[in-house]
Amino acid sequence: MYFLGIDWGASIFKIGLVKDSQVLYLETADSRFFSNPGSLYSFILSFIKKHTSLRKIRGLGIGCPGVVDVRRGFVYYFPNIKGWKNVPLARILEGRLKLPVYVDNDANMVALGEARFGAGKGFKNLIVITLGTGLGAGIIIEGRLFHSPFTSGSELGHITVDYQGKRCGCGSFGCIETFVGNRYLVDYARSLLKRKPSNIIKEFLKRDKLSPKLLTQAALKGCKVSQEIWERTARILGRFLVGLVNSWGPEAIVIGGGLSGAGKFLFGPLREEVRRLAMPPQNRYVRILRARLKEKAGILGAKEGLIDYKLG
Amino acid sequence: MYFLGIDWGASIFKIGLVKDSQVLYLETADSRFFSNPGSLYSFILSFIKKHTSLRKIRGLGIGCPGVVDVRRGFVYYFPNIKGWKNVPLARILEGRLKLPVYVDNDANMVALGEARFGAGKGFKNLIVITLGTGLGAGIIIEGRLFHSPFTSGSELGHITVDYQGKRCGCGSFGCIETFVGNRYLVDYARSLLKRKPSNIIKEFLKRDKLSPKLLTQAALKGCKVSQEIWERTARILGRFLVGLVNSWGPEAIVIGGGLSGAGKFLFGPLREEVRRLAMPPQNRYVRILRARLKEKAGILGAKEGLIDYKLG
Repeated sequence: MYFLGIDWGASIFKIGLVKDSQVLYLETADSRFFSNPGSLYSFILSFIKKHTSLRKIRGLGIGCPGVVDVRRGFVYYFPNIKGWKNVPLARILEGRLKLPVYVDNDANMVALGEARFGAGKGFKNLIVITLGTGLGAGIIIEGRLFHSPFTSGSELGHITVDYQGKRCGCGSFGCIETFVGNRYLVDYARSLLKRKPSNIIKEFLKRDKLSPKLLTQAALKGCKVSQEIWERTARILGRFLVGLVNSWGPEAIVIGGGLSGAGKFLFGPLREEVRRLAMPPQNRYVRILRARLKEKAGILGAKEGLIDYKLG
Repeated sequence: MYFLGIDWGASIFKIGLVKDSQVLYLETADSRFFSNPGSLYSFILSFIKKHTSLRKIRGLGIGCPGVVDVRRGFVYYFPNIKGWKNVPLARILEGRLKLPVYVDNDANMVALGEARFGAGKGFKNLIVITLGTGLGAGIIIEGRLFHSPFTSGSELGHITVDYQGKRCGCGSFGCIETFVGNRYLVDYARSLLKRKPSNIIKEFLKRDKLSPKLLTQAALKGCKVSQEIWERTARILGRFLVGLVNSWGPEAIVIGGGLSGAGKFLFGPLREEVRRLAMPPQNRYVRILRARLKEKAGILGAKEGLIDYKLG
């Protein structure tokens, strides 16, 4: 028997056929391609038929790019994709596919995957953060995902680290996402480069557009401006992590997503800040780790979510 | 049979004899009076003998002013009281009193008391915040206290709301405690009054020293400076609460302690900020309530903690 896992991020949609902890087949699409449950259903069905048959599937787990009620499998809204407001997604897909369907948040599913099969393996209490378009996170307490009473929670990206800071897409001010979200980071880099031009970056910009990846490549070539950008980003993210360590006291914080590609430029100062500024004794115990599973985390997590909360 | 509950705050120590949900006798002392387990033991024993006998007591619950490991009843440290570092408090008191002893954090015990018998009654998922010397908090998930794996956690007072802010007693920067802790608030008021003198406050200062209570009395008399101070405090605390609502999604946030005496000056703008800035759907559901139990919350909570985690 097989499982289906879907990792529907803000930009990329991934579907995978899973057996045990292996993703046998994986397909991707543009996340905004699915503007209603009908188009989603058709895509899922054709994926199944391409690789196996419906009666060999035990169920489907979906990590969605927004706020959902996991108990009812109900989509409240997706901040970045139109057409998804108050949709009883699990009920609709269950009706059509005749399969158990579990609906959760994408960051939660990535967290569960990373916790069970990736860098979080062996820890019972951990936070998994994905740094991409925004800052997504899932929290695992005693081996189980934390869900808030009304939603999939936790929207850790929308905790302020600067109460007088700039307005965030969510409507609040100075959310951590406004410092480490991809677009915000690139905006900051652009404004800094106006004041402090960098020849190394200028070279890169002939071939590529400005991105976190380009800033890492430039930093590796010795670009001081890029290094400064990473240091600032790590320091702000570090002070945010200190709050998480003080409030949740996890054994580990696992960080993945695009920005984690900055490697030592991010993780070095991050670990330092947490050791130095978080409260004892957690500051000594907590481990800050880089995610391992890459693009398969969310698919594997969605399968685990399905088993834990729907089939279990 | 009776229970003993101790609410050992940063300033005031309270001990109570409890039957069911009633505190029959209550005594207070200066928190710093107890510099070692011996002096604490003597005080407890004389309190018991004054009101009943040791064999009529089922057990003792203690809320401590600092970081403890609730599983072992072990005190890591108290930030404001000397002499308490790495003390196996439960084991020592159990050995002497021959009673089950449960050790937790004071804010956790206040939270459990408020949740079971006070403003939090009827909610299964809530956060109880105590605004006093610092900002203490307890988090209740599905009716049970949240404990981090290493400590009593949660030290919500040490979440930054201004990553470039002033240094906090904990060593980090811009923690919410540096804005709403009693001493910090008074310091801010003092500096503001230098720039904007207030005749109403000048009158009050002839009889009393500057305190949150005095600022509330002045605000009630129409003092614009005091009103401004409360509005700023509520706005900053509001943006902090938005982060809590977004990350934990509680049904209610209950606020007690000295600062909650500011009543409408605090709760009005607080509720507004949360409705306006927290993410849907939680922003519509979460209730921001004023604590009800006052000085008995911690004692009743300590008894509940004892029953839940030691006798249960």
